[in-house]
Amino acid sequence: MIAATDSSGVSPAWLAELTFDAQGLIPAIAQDADSGTILMVAWMNAEAVQETVRTGCAVYYSRSRQRLWRKGEESGHIQQVHDIRLDCDGDVLLLKITQIGGIACHTGRQRCFYRHLDLAAKPPQWLIQDPILKDPQSIYGTPKS
Amino acid sequence: MIAATDSSGVSPAWLAELTFDAQGLIPAIAQDADSGTILMVAWMNAEAVQETVRTGCAVYYSRSRQRLWRKGEESGHIQQVHDIRLDCDGDVLLLKITQIGGIACHTGRQRCFYRHLDLAAKPPQWLIQDPILKDPQSIYGTPKS
Repeated sequence: MIAATDSSGVSPAWLAELTFDAQGLIPAIAQDADSGTILMVAWMNAEAVQETVRTGCAVYYSRSRQRLWRKGEESGHIQQVHDIRLDCDGDVLLLKITQIGGIACHTGRQRCFYRHLDLAAKPPQWLIQDPILKDPQSIYGTPKS
Repeated sequence: MIAATDSSGVSPAWLAELTFDAQGLIPAIAQDADSGTILMVAWMNAEAVQETVRTGCAVYYSRSRQRLWRKGEESGHIQQVHDIRLDCDGDVLLLKITQIGGIACHTGRQRCFYRHLDLAAKPPQWLIQDPILKDPQSIYGTPKS
């Protein structure tokens, strides 16, 4: 497990309350502070959690790139963090945020949860309900995988 | 990975859109359909997802008990599911629910995210903000670990 420590080499007490998984990660939900809309879920390691607390901007750990992911570092769509909450088991974080630019998803949509399961269809099917607000290529310059 | 199949032995197309982890699980967020409050996060396997879709009540997979966990089976605090959403990567589910009994957390609180990180404190510390609405022993009969 990846342990974050302060200058004395000791993990802060508040950080020790978190339960990281075998990969040293904890999931974090980003929820719009005003509307309550759930925008995305990403992962943090201890370093990302500490930097988020220190800077007030959401920092995740990219599992695909295997490095810290300062949300908005390419797109400018940073997340200002107003509140950090922890669940009863200590293994999920909840961030109340303001999404700069109004786009949290790499597809150019407001939120990652843009698919809704249509149960009226037989069999059920996923329907895309949210519009693309901005072409991902204009956000990132190059196509995102 | 645990695969759920229909009577023909084929995984339904809508279920095949989900990405389960190495343990065959996917996290599911339960959000109050009216207030937008995030109540809890738990895990589902393919069977739990299918039973949730079929019954309209949230069914999770208990990692500690290693079996299906029909939410409310002991407490009566079932979750009526109104909407199921999937994120862009297909690896997180979002349920909009009505929490019967108004208590989602096994501690007897409305929600599992009852701890708030107090950043005004130096060093930061977790503060419990939500009241216990019902003694867990009266909910479950025996103390929950």
